[in-house]
Amino acid sequence: MGDELRFTKGHGTENDFVLVADPDGQLNLSPATVAALCDRRAGIGGDGLIRVVRSTALPEGEDSLAEDENAEWIMDYRNADGSLAEMCGNGVRVFAAYLQERGLIEPAVLDTATGLVIGTRAGVRRVRRAVGPAGEPDWLAVDMGRWRLPGGPAAVSDGFDAEVRITGLDGVARPGLSVDLGNPHTVVALPDAAELDAADLLSAPVVHPVPRDGTNVELIVMEPPTGPEGRLRMRVHERGVGETRSCGTGACAAALAAMTWGGAEAPGTWLVDVPGGQVRVRALPEQGVELAGPARLVADGVVHLGSLKV
Amino acid sequence: MGDELRFTKGHGTENDFVLVADPDGQLNLSPATVAALCDRRAGIGGDGLIRVVRSTALPEGEDSLAEDENAEWIMDYRNADGSLAEMCGNGVRVFAAYLQERGLIEPAVLDTATGLVIGTRAGVRRVRRAVGPAGEPDWLAVDMGRWRLPGGPAAVSDGFDAEVRITGLDGVARPGLSVDLGNPHTVVALPDAAELDAADLLSAPVVHPVPRDGTNVELIVMEPPTGPEGRLRMRVHERGVGETRSCGTGACAAALAAMTWGGAEAPGTWLVDVPGGQVRVRALPEQGVELAGPARLVADGVVHLGSLKV
Repeated sequence: MGDELRFTKGHGTENDFVLVADPDGQLNLSPATVAALCDRRAGIGGDGLIRVVRSTALPEGEDSLAEDENAEWIMDYRNADGSLAEMCGNGVRVFAAYLQERGLIEPAVLDTATGLVIGTRAGVRRVRRAVGPAGEPDWLAVDMGRWRLPGGPAAVSDGFDAEVRITGLDGVARPGLSVDLGNPHTVVALPDAAELDAADLLSAPVVHPVPRDGTNVELIVMEPPTGPEGRLRMRVHERGVGETRSCGTGACAAALAAMTWGGAEAPGTWLVDVPGGQVRVRALPEQGVELAGPARLVADGVVHLGSLKV
Repeated sequence: MGDELRFTKGHGTENDFVLVADPDGQLNLSPATVAALCDRRAGIGGDGLIRVVRSTALPEGEDSLAEDENAEWIMDYRNADGSLAEMCGNGVRVFAAYLQERGLIEPAVLDTATGLVIGTRAGVRRVRRAVGPAGEPDWLAVDMGRWRLPGGPAAVSDGFDAEVRITGLDGVARPGLSVDLGNPHTVVALPDAAELDAADLLSAPVVHPVPRDGTNVELIVMEPPTGPEGRLRMRVHERGVGETRSCGTGACAAALAAMTWGGAEAPGTWLVDVPGGQVRVRALPEQGVELAGPARLVADGVVHLGSLKV
C-alpha cells in the first residue's frame, strides 16, 4: 500500500461511506486504518468503508465474503470502527452506483430482470435500476433477502410481541413488533408526529423482553398517502450506534410491521421518510423484501495515509 | 462556478476544515453551498470552510475582510452553517499549511521574525514555524492578538468573577474566571481528572452572572509538567455548538487563567491537552498570546456540486 489512497465519498439517504477500489485485492486495510479513514474530523469520515474487489481476486477459501458465480464484484463492508460488517442496505446502492460510474459494469445489467449480482458477507444481493416517486433518476432497488417475524403467529394476531419504553415521552410502555431481517428490529407505532418528534433517541429505548442480541428500534407514524403506496415517517435508534439519519433494514422492518398491522388491506409498497431522505419498501413473494432509494457519489479524491491518525 | 470544485480537507487538533482555493476571487459560495459542503454525511464535512483568496482580488471596500499591505493571502472563514466567522485559531494554522503545501508562499517566510501575515475578519494574524514538544515538525505558531480579563483587577485578586454549574457533577456552583480573546470564555478549574471526565457537556454549563453574549466554557485540571512549561488538560463547551475536540481561543483562555491563578510564579508557556491533541500557549508582551499546534492536510479531491444537498 502506497502513501496515497484514492477514495470516493458517497451516501444513500445520508448513510455515508468511503469507497476504495481494489479490483485485484491488493489492499490490506487494517481495522486501525479503516477507523482512521472513517474518522469524521481527522480522516475522511463515513458510517463505514466499502472496499470494491473483484470476486476472482479473493483468496481461495475466503468464506467470509460470499461468492457466487454471477457476482463479479464483492462489497467488502467495514464498520466505522474497523470491524467487519455483513451488509448494509443503503451501502449496496452506493456500491452499485460506484461500479456504474467507474465503468466497472455494463450499465444495462441494472435494467435486466436478474439485475446486478453483488457478493456480500450476507450472501448475494441483486440491484436493479429504479425511479423515485418524484421521477428521481438516481434510484436503485436492492433485493434485501428474506424477513420473518420471530414472534410467530401470536405476534401476527396480536400485532406486537414486545414493550418499549422511550425517553422523552410519558413513562408508558408502548407495544412493539419484532421483525428480523438478518439483524433484529423492534418497530413501535406512535399516534402522531408530535410524539415522534418528542422522542429522545440519545439513549436507547428499553425493550422488554430484553432481546438476546440487542435490537434496532424504529419509531414510526403513519402519514397520508400521496399515491397508491402506503407512507410512514420513521426515526431509528441503531443498536450500538445511536440515532442515525437512515437505516435500510430498519426502513424495511418499519414497512413490514405496517403491512402486518394493516393485514390484507395494507398496500404492498411503502414510502418511508427518514431524517436523511426517502426510501421505498416493497414486499416480494416468499418473504422477500426490496429496498429502493437514491445513491449519491459526492466527491473523489486522494487521501494522504501518512497524515491519518492510525 | 462550474460543476466541480477542488477541495482540501485538513485539521488542527481535530478542528477540521474544507479548504477551497480561490486566488482570483471568482467563487461565489452561497451560505447554502457552504453548509452543504460542511455537511458531514451529505457533503465533505467540516467545522467550517476556508476560502483561500488573494488580497488583491478582494473588491474595493470589502471591509469585512481585513486588509494589510503585508497580507498577500486572506482567510475567508465560514462556519459550518454557512454564516461568516471572524477567525479560528486552529484554522489559521491549517490555512498556512495549505499555502505552504500548494507553493503559494515562500516557505522561508514562516521562519522570519515577522512571519507569514494573514488577513482575517479579526485583523491580521502572523504565523511562524514551530516545533512540537516531542519534536513534531508540522507545528505552527499563531499570534492570536490581545486578551483581557473583563472582570478587571477584582477578578485578578479574587481569581474568579463568575459561578458555573456543570451537569454531571455535584450540584455545587464552581468559581470561574472570564477571559476575553475577542470572543468570551469562562474557565473553571476542577480538582482532578475524575471530575473532568464526569462532567456532562451535552448541555451547556450555566454561568452566573449570565454573560450578555453567551460564553465558551473551559473545564481544566492541572497536570504534572513534563518540562519547563506548565501543563493542563481541558474540555470545552463552545457557545452555540456543544462540546468540541479542540478550541484554539479556549486553549489560550485556559492557559491565561492558569497564569492568572499562578501569579508571578506561574510558567509563561503551557501545554494544553485537548481531546483532539495538544497545543502550546505562550504569553507575549503587551497582553499578547501565541497559540502553537499541529496542522494536517489529510486529503485532496473534487466535489461534484450537483450531488450536494443545497
